Amino acid sequence: MFEINAPVSNVPNEFITALQQKIDLKTKPQGSLGLLESVAFKTALLQGTLSPVFTQPSIIIFAADHGIADEGVSLFPQVVTEQMVLNFLNGGAAINCFSKQHDINLKIVNAGVKANFDDIKHPDFINQPIANGTQNFAKQAAMTAAQCTDAINAGANIVKQQYQAGCNVIGFGEMGIANTTSAAAIMAAILNLKGQQCAGKGTGIDEEGISLKAAVIDAAIKQHQLYDADALTVLQKVGGFEIAMMVGAMLQAAELSMLVLVDGFIASSAALVASEIDDNFLHYTQFCHQSEEQAHQLLLNKMNAQPLLNLGLRLGEGSGVAVAYPLLVSSLAFLNEMASFASAGVSDS
Amino acid sequence: MFEINAPVSNVPNEFITALQQKIDLKTKPQGSLGLLESVAFKTALLQGTLSPVFTQPSIIIFAADHGIADEGVSLFPQVVTEQMVLNFLNGGAAINCFSKQHDINLKIVNAGVKANFDDIKHPDFINQPIANGTQNFAKQAAMTAAQCTDAINAGANIVKQQYQAGCNVIGFGEMGIANTTSAAAIMAAILNLKGQQCAGKGTGIDEEGISLKAAVIDAAIKQHQLYDADALTVLQKVGGFEIAMMVGAMLQAAELSMLVLVDGFIASSAALVASEIDDNFLHYTQFCHQSEEQAHQLLLNKMNAQPLLNLGLRLGEGSGVAVAYPLLVSSLAFLNEMASFASAGVSDS
Repeated sequence: MFEINAPVSNVPNEFITALQQKIDLKTKPQGSLGLLESVAFKTALLQGTLSPVFTQPSIIIFAADHGIADEGVSLFPQVVTEQMVLNFLNGGAAINCFSKQHDINLKIVNAGVKANFDDIKHPDFINQPIANGTQNFAKQAAMTAAQCTDAINAGANIVKQQYQAGCNVIGFGEMGIANTTSAAAIMAAILNLKGQQCAGKGTGIDEEGISLKAAVIDAAIKQHQLYDADALTVLQKVGGFEIAMMVGAMLQAAELSMLVLVDGFIASSAALVASEIDDNFLHYTQFCHQSEEQAHQLLLNKMNAQPLLNLGLRLGEGSGVAVAYPLLVSSLAFLNEMASFASAGVSDS
Repeated sequence: MFEINAPVSNVPNEFITALQQKIDLKTKPQGSLGLLESVAFKTALLQGTLSPVFTQPSIIIFAADHGIADEGVSLFPQVVTEQMVLNFLNGGAAINCFSKQHDINLKIVNAGVKANFDDIKHPDFINQPIANGTQNFAKQAAMTAAQCTDAINAGANIVKQQYQAGCNVIGFGEMGIANTTSAAAIMAAILNLKGQQCAGKGTGIDEEGISLKAAVIDAAIKQHQLYDADALTVLQKVGGFEIAMMVGAMLQAAELSMLVLVDGFIASSAALVASEIDDNFLHYTQFCHQSEEQAHQLLLNKMNAQPLLNLGLRLGEGSGVAVAYPLLVSSLAFLNEMASFASAGVSDS
């Protein structure tokens, strides 16, 4: 479906040595910039240059509704998905503030919201709904296999457009009332976990609500026989259109050697699916933050992911990507702009 | 010495309610922006306005040498302090890249480097050495009581100048070979801890070096009888000129209701001294990162500090402040720019 190379296979052997040396000879104790050094290393490797740059940074928000909302798993009414899409387009959401702050291009995709946006004309709006929300996966598959494929391809095509416009670093956000339930079900099914290990408070439900969510997940996994299923089947049975588009978008970005910035819990569930589909995918990711959503730590651990931030965020929308982005810029700034011990005349121990 | 009010005493009672309401009515689940919400709350309170702004953000790097370097506690030769000051002035250090990235004003202060900078003319250089390095505190007091007072006053005066130039948010960095030993000794003495609980690898020493550092600290605390001493005496006996200037600078900034951005381990030792001198000081601080220096976590815990970042940095120079700064800007961006549920027409659960 996608052809993703291991990044090291794209560069000559000497490149790795030269890159590590460039990092180590900067005027600082070795390793003293911590995770910023790893990010610089990874980005240089993906771009195949000792002087990597980020161009046209972008965040795509995929929005969709979820039939599983009918089970009462969210604090907010389903109409909030539509309302928040309009809020994004009007510039009033958190992600708007943070994207503006860092000059990040923001696109909003209707991946399948239960609403009609045909009258919306907005330069940053992409109206490609797969359907008016998924089916309730407590009762039937969330989507058909064809819908799942369509969503993956749509996500991939949107990334291709960004790439052609000059973007080489891209993050993905989401909006969809009840989508933590879908993400938790994906996580539970793929990692062979119980609902209670994966269900969290989402937008703010209480303990009773979390138990309900866990029960819904366990029942769905049993009903759809997901513990033995492959990742694509899991995505189809309990996923969402925004999550499926994100999977396609992430895989396409990796195929194009872009750096993929992963947001919180829901985006991480998409990354999990992508990593199951292609072993090399995770080399192209930078996880941006650890969400307050309780299962996110475990999900990150399963992917050996070291996120940049842990600020107690649990908002989605790509907000964690946006606020983490300047750290990524810092990592390239030190690599490209700092003096070396030799050039600055500083003794190196 | 300084008169620091509790921030809540500066605003009417209704202010607190209005501020929390402004935060809670933004189009996001309550509390979902985590630590960014705390930062917004704190900053609004300090500035006494529901629409706080940061003006003329500044980082002051205090540099000084340490007599204790003679005990072999650092990996780098002492001359590196001087060399790094020149690197700062030439724009080649990490802090230069990061300050430039975020339009942060950077000033370099010679607080007592073992070098002569009389010929340096640079708009960002402040040449006010207390002496050519401290004395070796393994043998005698690091500085005299008069030198300690002079350093505190000098730091305070530098902050006054920044304040008069319109700065209301200020961070402090440091450079000084062997200063993790001084900071660890301050921490051990004030918090009644053993050297081994406070000594870390600094610029990269090995286990043997850390044991030596711990032994040096324990011996100094015994020799100078510091477990019963007040914080100013501790600062005088085992501190450094850059740390003493930072203490004065921090207290002065708090007195002026500026937000004080605290960098890593050494800056935190200065914050500890400042908090011992004035109970209200910590209300004016935002700790920016948790350093890789092993004792920093404990030091932060003792001050109930929740740092913004944990990136494994251990560089000093104010680098943690600079890379964390955009997060502070994000916190004010959401407070000032996001739509409310009512203004955006979004249902609030």
